[in-house]
Amino acid sequence: MESACALPIKNIQIDDRFWNRYTALVTDVVLPYQWNILNDRVPGAVPSYCLANFRIAAGDAEGERKGTCFQDSDAAKWLEAAAYSLALRPNPELEKNADEVIDLIGRSQCEDGYLNTYFTLAERGGRWSNLTEGHELYCAGHLIEAAVAYYESTGKDRLLAIACRYADLIARVFGPGEDQLHGYSGHPEIELSLVKLYRVTRRRPYLELARYFVERRGQSPNWFLEEMARPGYRPLFRELQSYDPRYSQSHLPVRQQKSAEGHAVRAVYLYCAMADLAEEYDDTDMLETCKTLWRNIVEKRMFITGGVGSSGFWERFTVDYDLPNDSNYAETCASIGLALFGLRMSRITGDASYIDTVERALYNTVRAGISLEGDRYFYVNPLEVWPDICMDHSSRAHVKPVRQQWFDVACCPTNVARTLSSLGQYIYSISDNALYVNLFIQNTASFAIGEKSAAVSLTTDYPKTGIITIRVSGQGASFALMVRKPEFAENYSITINGERAECEIDTGYCRISRIWNDDEALVSFDIPPRIVYANPLVRANCGKAAMVRGPEVYCLEEADNGQNLASVYLDETAAPEAVWRDDLFGGTMLIRFRGKKLSAPGMVPSFSPENAQTFQDITLTAVPYGSWCNRGGGEMIVWMHRLLAGNQA
Amino acid sequence: MESACALPIKNIQIDDRFWNRYTALVTDVVLPYQWNILNDRVPGAVPSYCLANFRIAAGDAEGERKGTCFQDSDAAKWLEAAAYSLALRPNPELEKNADEVIDLIGRSQCEDGYLNTYFTLAERGGRWSNLTEGHELYCAGHLIEAAVAYYESTGKDRLLAIACRYADLIARVFGPGEDQLHGYSGHPEIELSLVKLYRVTRRRPYLELARYFVERRGQSPNWFLEEMARPGYRPLFRELQSYDPRYSQSHLPVRQQKSAEGHAVRAVYLYCAMADLAEEYDDTDMLETCKTLWRNIVEKRMFITGGVGSSGFWERFTVDYDLPNDSNYAETCASIGLALFGLRMSRITGDASYIDTVERALYNTVRAGISLEGDRYFYVNPLEVWPDICMDHSSRAHVKPVRQQWFDVACCPTNVARTLSSLGQYIYSISDNALYVNLFIQNTASFAIGEKSAAVSLTTDYPKTGIITIRVSGQGASFALMVRKPEFAENYSITINGERAECEIDTGYCRISRIWNDDEALVSFDIPPRIVYANPLVRANCGKAAMVRGPEVYCLEEADNGQNLASVYLDETAAPEAVWRDDLFGGTMLIRFRGKKLSAPGMVPSFSPENAQTFQDITLTAVPYGSWCNRGGGEMIVWMHRLLAGNQA
Repeated sequence: MESACALPIKNIQIDDRFWNRYTALVTDVVLPYQWNILNDRVPGAVPSYCLANFRIAAGDAEGERKGTCFQDSDAAKWLEAAAYSLALRPNPELEKNADEVIDLIGRSQCEDGYLNTYFTLAERGGRWSNLTEGHELYCAGHLIEAAVAYYESTGKDRLLAIACRYADLIARVFGPGEDQLHGYSGHPEIELSLVKLYRVTRRRPYLELARYFVERRGQSPNWFLEEMARPGYRPLFRELQSYDPRYSQSHLPVRQQKSAEGHAVRAVYLYCAMADLAEEYDDTDMLETCKTLWRNIVEKRMFITGGVGSSGFWERFTVDYDLPNDSNYAETCASIGLALFGLRMSRITGDASYIDTVERALYNTVRAGISLEGDRYFYVNPLEVWPDICMDHSSRAHVKPVRQQWFDVACCPTNVARTLSSLGQYIYSISDNALYVNLFIQNTASFAIGEKSAAVSLTTDYPKTGIITIRVSGQGASFALMVRKPEFAENYSITINGERAECEIDTGYCRISRIWNDDEALVSFDIPPRIVYANPLVRANCGKAAMVRGPEVYCLEEADNGQNLASVYLDETAAPEAVWRDDLFGGTMLIRFRGKKLSAPGMVPSFSPENAQTFQDITLTAVPYGSWCNRGGGEMIVWMHRLLAGNQA
Repeated sequence: MESACALPIKNIQIDDRFWNRYTALVTDVVLPYQWNILNDRVPGAVPSYCLANFRIAAGDAEGERKGTCFQDSDAAKWLEAAAYSLALRPNPELEKNADEVIDLIGRSQCEDGYLNTYFTLAERGGRWSNLTEGHELYCAGHLIEAAVAYYESTGKDRLLAIACRYADLIARVFGPGEDQLHGYSGHPEIELSLVKLYRVTRRRPYLELARYFVERRGQSPNWFLEEMARPGYRPLFRELQSYDPRYSQSHLPVRQQKSAEGHAVRAVYLYCAMADLAEEYDDTDMLETCKTLWRNIVEKRMFITGGVGSSGFWERFTVDYDLPNDSNYAETCASIGLALFGLRMSRITGDASYIDTVERALYNTVRAGISLEGDRYFYVNPLEVWPDICMDHSSRAHVKPVRQQWFDVACCPTNVARTLSSLGQYIYSISDNALYVNLFIQNTASFAIGEKSAAVSLTTDYPKTGIITIRVSGQGASFALMVRKPEFAENYSITINGERAECEIDTGYCRISRIWNDDEALVSFDIPPRIVYANPLVRANCGKAAMVRGPEVYCLEEADNGQNLASVYLDETAAPEAVWRDDLFGGTMLIRFRGKKLSAPGMVPSFSPENAQTFQDITLTAVPYGSWCNRGGGEMIVWMHRLLAGNQA
């Protein structure tokens, strides 16, 4: 396959009105805050125990190892986020903390390379005995990802050496040999990390091991069912007592899987590795499987916000078109994984439609996952919230009406941090003869193409407008500038140095092939508010509509529209109006539109034959879903009723 | 208080087109089937272990006591149902089996009167140490109810003596004395049973103990929180690990409770006892509390089907107007308890509006709880089912799309059996000078009024029609015949011996006072199909409507209307039509009406800006909710979308 690849993150300097807030937050707020969390220094937050566990493992401290079995991965995700941050901007204090953590992790590593505080301290002798739930290989995967990122950002190879020693051990333990274990991780992650490790070290066994893990998954007899049936197996999570292999995507060999099943984060992490392997092994069959799974997600199992995971219990995919608004899961991490999967697919196929979904996930669910102040997080991302019913000890206890400080399972905050600090990776892809512009985030970047060193400067206030200026310093390089045409763009046009360019649209990219010196491409498109409809097979949204504008899905909040948002009807006879507000959320586009609100004053019983319901006119104000719940708690709704008379279509 | 009371069940012979099927089922199918279940003789069904446990306790067998801690109560509920059945019709085999069970139970009783196989065999020495979860007093309550019923039906007092011995022990253990326990049952039931035991034995301590239990509940410090904090406390149910006293209605002293909270079955059983105590002690304050709680349920926390319990987790009440259709609980037992509470309230207050709700619960949720064949049961009663999403290991796992054979927690099937076999209790109430006709179920009954022996014969094919003939043989007794006027009755009229009677409507009853000899009252009212609306505060039903006719709520099933019932819109411009069908469900009234169905052929993604949705005309056929799911699985929906244009009200 002729795939495009990433520009190194450190080659890209983001300076963007929309995203600066978040990228700055990572360095200024999130990493220091999470540093305190990892050190158990935030009063009132759920304790992490993460670094305390490593200190015990390293012999620096005594005590009992605490927290979930996968607590180690929080340090790794923090390190990965720190690495990306350091790639963009020197930060001696952050680097010092990171180096200390790396040193601590190194001193926690066993003689043979093994590295996991849970199985070293809490479940001694339990190594590799609980792949179903133990998250051992999952933690190893995040460690490897952090090591690759830290090496690429800082050039320091201490963590990379630690990771390689551990990966070498894993490659000895697992594999097809008679004396090797034929298992794989209950929670995929190791697979994609091993591909990364291969790409930076070029050591082939890492890639082979990734392939082994992926291809073994779902082979019969099922590894997890056999493991759980073994005498002495000790369950770690009560909700897995009756196991369904779909939970870990091990119900079928991966090449036979046609629909996205089970735990949503596990699924998309697995699919990332499958895409990587399709690319590395030029495996068109695997690529077709990836495309099938992608289509199943995007067409039938994804929320409009780019969220995935319809059931709170098991945090899982369920069935096609089951997309409940108020009881869904749509874990922040799952949207991160979806974006990573889509990014890979876009690079392999050169198809910009993948980026439409990547952008949807990043601008909506991932952004909603963190507060504008950077210190509160959503794990679950509902599309409709009535705070009163999000009660503890109820079927909706998993839905929180406001962001939380921290979680006992704290995957999402660190995952958001590493995503925001590596946002640059999503902007460009590069191949031998083309530079792909995927996302419209203001930045400057340098790259090499052919044998030339080139630079690009992208200026925009997208998504406020669809005007993007791309200045290329090409040193005479001949290549195609491939500018994405988003599916929602209207009146899309490009000028080169002021002259209208012929736009040849190729799988969602506008191709401009020329010899580039100091040239300027001006991309322009309209982003009007749009009303979108759900497929009627989505039972939850039958007869409803949502407001979107560009990549952003909009929602109604109680702060602007009062209570009982479920009683609001969208009036489609008047065009919605986009209104810029400088003073809200650091500058945001609102959408105002006409609606009606159903009320029944004096109707006490829950049901009645009296048709006392009346409509009141109301002007509705919608805000971007990614910014919701930054003005205290309250109701929120994405999908609104439509006014449908029988004779309307 | 001048309360009415019940006619003895054995004075009432039901012979009703609508209900015969069910009452016959109890004797012919349900009791024998459940007998086999209690004896673990049904292949494929979840084992009960119930009688096996008693056999071990009695020393007849060896082995390990199995099943939930409250398994004993299934035998009691079966005995209670058997008792009612024997009251109506001799059945030597049934009586022999019942007597054997009673003998077995008697031989399981400890020297001091204690009687519970769980705490005798499984948790030895644990007596009264886990009132929070152990269901000890709950099981005692069901035993007492069975004893009273068996005594009243058969005159045999063996079980009554067993129950009294046990109740005497409980009255020694619990009470205000310094050497007594000041606790009460986590699951109310003992309270109402003690009132029954008092009423049949006239032994005052039973009534006093009931009052003690009710008044202690919710007093500070909370008994359950203290109990759970005690060293050595062993939790039985994992979902109670973080306890909220609302679960057991112990969050406040009962007189301070203003809303129905917590586990719905527990709540309504408690309220039954509160109503009983209000009556026995002439306690108007307690009666007001009962009225407040009743109004809160009926006006804000009850489904249109008479179901209660909005959350699957904790099977609980949540908040006002939280009535989700597809993820609710609405346990069959909770509707049974609601009917029992309403029946009590109607007798205390003489207000027929309580019966409207009793009838709603019986004709809809209770009836839906059992299959027309009598051998399959619903525990959870949803108002909307999409079978595909009722998956194991998901947030909707508690909703079953088809009735089940049996359950590991098997309260509902036995509860339905005792309810159907005691249906007679709901038909009449009697006071010193009035006979109340509550439900229109064909029957003959004898009663004493003043000093006369009288008889009544009620003939009807209700709810097919609203024509009821009541023949009274009054022997010259002077009393008021109080005939309920249902809230839905239209053109209500009564003739006496062919002459139009003056209908004085008194709190929902039409009072006909006269000296009764052989007289005939002909009651007549229309029961047209009606469209009802939800209060817009019920978020789940905003802009929706339901079809009802008389006491019956209707629903659409896939068998009649195809798939994707969520996309169906009710067209209110044409009147719905009631159509009798002899050949369905043993004779049933269907409702046919015009509707539209939203479709979007070719619309693949879950959301799209293309407004490709079109309405197709469809004739919809609704069946009674109480009869749903008797033609295999499939979709079902109660609340349908309305066609609402902005200018409609």
